[in-house]
Amino acid sequence: MNMFVDGEWRTDAYEMSNEDGEFDRDETTFRNWVGGEQVRDGEAPDPDAEFPVESGRYHLYVSLACPWAHRTLVTQALKGLEDAISVDVVDPYRDDGGWQFTPEKAGCDADSINGFDYLREAYVAADENYTGRVTVPVLWDKQEGTIVNNESEEVMRMLDVAFDDLAERDVNLYPEGHRADVDRVVSEIYEPINNGVYRSGFAETQEAYETAVGELFDALDRWEAVLDDQRYLAGDVLTEADVAMFTTLVRFDDVYHTHFKCNVRKIAEYPNLWNYLLELSQLPGVAETVNMDHITEHYYTTHTDVNPKQIVAVGPDHDFLAAHDRDRLAGGPPDALREANATADD
Amino acid sequence: MNMFVDGEWRTDAYEMSNEDGEFDRDETTFRNWVGGEQVRDGEAPDPDAEFPVESGRYHLYVSLACPWAHRTLVTQALKGLEDAISVDVVDPYRDDGGWQFTPEKAGCDADSINGFDYLREAYVAADENYTGRVTVPVLWDKQEGTIVNNESEEVMRMLDVAFDDLAERDVNLYPEGHRADVDRVVSEIYEPINNGVYRSGFAETQEAYETAVGELFDALDRWEAVLDDQRYLAGDVLTEADVAMFTTLVRFDDVYHTHFKCNVRKIAEYPNLWNYLLELSQLPGVAETVNMDHITEHYYTTHTDVNPKQIVAVGPDHDFLAAHDRDRLAGGPPDALREANATADD
Repeated sequence: MNMFVDGEWRTDAYEMSNEDGEFDRDETTFRNWVGGEQVRDGEAPDPDAEFPVESGRYHLYVSLACPWAHRTLVTQALKGLEDAISVDVVDPYRDDGGWQFTPEKAGCDADSINGFDYLREAYVAADENYTGRVTVPVLWDKQEGTIVNNESEEVMRMLDVAFDDLAERDVNLYPEGHRADVDRVVSEIYEPINNGVYRSGFAETQEAYETAVGELFDALDRWEAVLDDQRYLAGDVLTEADVAMFTTLVRFDDVYHTHFKCNVRKIAEYPNLWNYLLELSQLPGVAETVNMDHITEHYYTTHTDVNPKQIVAVGPDHDFLAAHDRDRLAGGPPDALREANATADD
Repeated sequence: MNMFVDGEWRTDAYEMSNEDGEFDRDETTFRNWVGGEQVRDGEAPDPDAEFPVESGRYHLYVSLACPWAHRTLVTQALKGLEDAISVDVVDPYRDDGGWQFTPEKAGCDADSINGFDYLREAYVAADENYTGRVTVPVLWDKQEGTIVNNESEEVMRMLDVAFDDLAERDVNLYPEGHRADVDRVVSEIYEPINNGVYRSGFAETQEAYETAVGELFDALDRWEAVLDDQRYLAGDVLTEADVAMFTTLVRFDDVYHTHFKCNVRKIAEYPNLWNYLLELSQLPGVAETVNMDHITEHYYTTHTDVNPKQIVAVGPDHDFLAAHDRDRLAGGPPDALREANATADD
C-alpha cells in the first residue's frame, strides 16, 4: 500500500497555490479513450480500440458536488446513457482521506463495483504506484479493473461521441459544423469561469484574488452580451460547451458568490445568463443531476482553510424551474429533448 | 498597567459565543449622560448635570467600519454637530491589541486629544481597573479626561437631544409624538437585524446560524412590507430608528451577505429597503460618513476565525447615489435637510 507514504497523497485536491498566491490546478493523470483517440475529434469509435464501447462495461465514480464530475452526469442524462453506464456517488464531504463511499448518507452510494471505502483505492488499483491527486469524475473499466480517464472534458466527449450508439436519445453535443466552436468555447470559458471561481476562492493573496475575480466577471459580462442574441454558447445548437458552463453557473449563487467571494454579481442578476441557466436546468434529466445539498455541504465543510467554522450558508431560494425567455431566440434543444420535455409536460 | 493582566483584556470584541454556539454580545460599560439621564426620554439637558452640554468639550472615538459607531457619525452629520464635537477615527483593522490609532493610514487619525496609540488606553484612563471589552463609539469628556458613554444608542440620543441647541440644522430625530415608536423600533430591529448579522456570522453551530439567518430575513421581509407604504421606520418622519437601520443596511451587500453568510437576499433585491437605503444615503452629510474601504477591510481582515486568508471581497458595484422612489410616499426629511440637499443640487 502506498497511500500516505511520504505524504505524497494529495487529498487536498484543490487547495494548491504557487509562489504568487495564485491557485494552480494540476493536470489529471489517466487519459485513455473508450473507442480510441479519434473520438476526441468527433469520429466514430473504433471497435478494436483498447477500451471498446460496450454497454454495462464502464462505470462512473462521481461526486454530485463537483462541477467537473457533474458535466459527465449531465451528458449522460441528456443522451439517455443511464442503462449503458453505471454510477456511484461519493460523500460530498471530503476529509483527509479524500473522497469516500458512505452509503448511509442521503444521496451517497456504496462502491457497487469494487466495494472500496475510499476512491483513492480505485487509483491505486489502476496504478499501484499512484500517489497524486484523487479526483472525480473517474471513468472505470469494470472488465480490466482500471481507470480509463479522469479528465472531465474527455469523459464528456467520450459519453457524447463514443457511446452515441448506446444512447436512448438522439442528442449529439459535438455536432458536425460546430466542433471548432465547441472546442474554442470550452477552452475559452475554462480559465476565467470554470476554474476562475476556484482561482478566486483559493487565492492566497489579495492581488491573485482580484485578478481572478476581475477576469471571471469580465468573462461573464461578455457571455451575457453574447447570449442576448444567441441561444447557446457555440451558436444555435446545444453543445458540450453549454454542459461545461452549466455546472459552474448552477453552483454560482449558492456557493461561489459567498464561499469563494465571487460577489460582484449573482448569476440571477444577469438576465441572459440566468434565463440560459433556467433553460438548461429544465432539459430532460438535468434537474435530477443537481443536488444542492451535496453541493453546499461539500464546499462549505471541506475547505476549512476558507471556512473554518464549516457553517453551510443558506443561500438564495432560487427556482430553477421558473419560466425562461430563451424561446425568443433562434435554435433550441435537439428534437429528442423537446419531445421528452413535451411528454413530461403532459 | 492592567492590560493583558490575567488575559482578561477583551480585544476580540465580537467573537464570543455561548455553549449553544450562539453569539452573545456583552453589555457596554460606561453609561453616563451628557445633560443628565432625562435626555434619554427626550427632555432638555440639565445645565447642572455632572456632564453638562458644552461645545468643544466632548470627543468621539469611532471606527468608520463599525455600524454602532457609525450611528453617532450619521447623527452628528444630520444635525450639523461637526463643530461642537470633535472626532478621531481608529484603524479599521483590529489586531490583538484592539482598536488602534494609525494616522499614517488613509482615513485614520492620530488621537488628537490624548495621544494614545490604542483605544484601550482611554478605557484605562477612565477606569484604572478596566479589563473588559474595548469598543467604539466612545464619547469622551476632554475636561474630566474620562469616558462618558460607550453605548451607541445612548450616544446617538445624547447627540440628538442634549446637543440640540448646538446643532447647525434644525433636525430632531426623536420628535415628540413619535418617541414610543422610535424606542420600540430601535429595540425591535436590534436583535434580528443589527445584531442578527453578527449572530449569523459568528455562530459556532449550524443550528445557531440558521436560527439567526432565519430571524434576520424574516425581519427584513417584514420591514420591506412596512416600507411599501410608510416612508420611514417610525412613520412619516425621519428618526433615530432610521439611523440605527441605515448603518446595518449600508454594510449588508458588501459584507454581511458574503462574510457573515447572510446570503438569502441582498438589500438591493428588496425594492423598498433598497430605495429607503438610497434616500438615507443621500441626506446631507451622510455619504461622507460611509467609508466602504474601512468597512470591508475591517470585517474581512479582522475576523480571521471566519476568514483566515483575510482576502477582502470585491463586492457589488452599488451606486448609493442613484435616484430613489421614496418621494412617492407621504412625509420626508425635515425642512433643514431638504434645504441643504436643494442647495447642494444647485
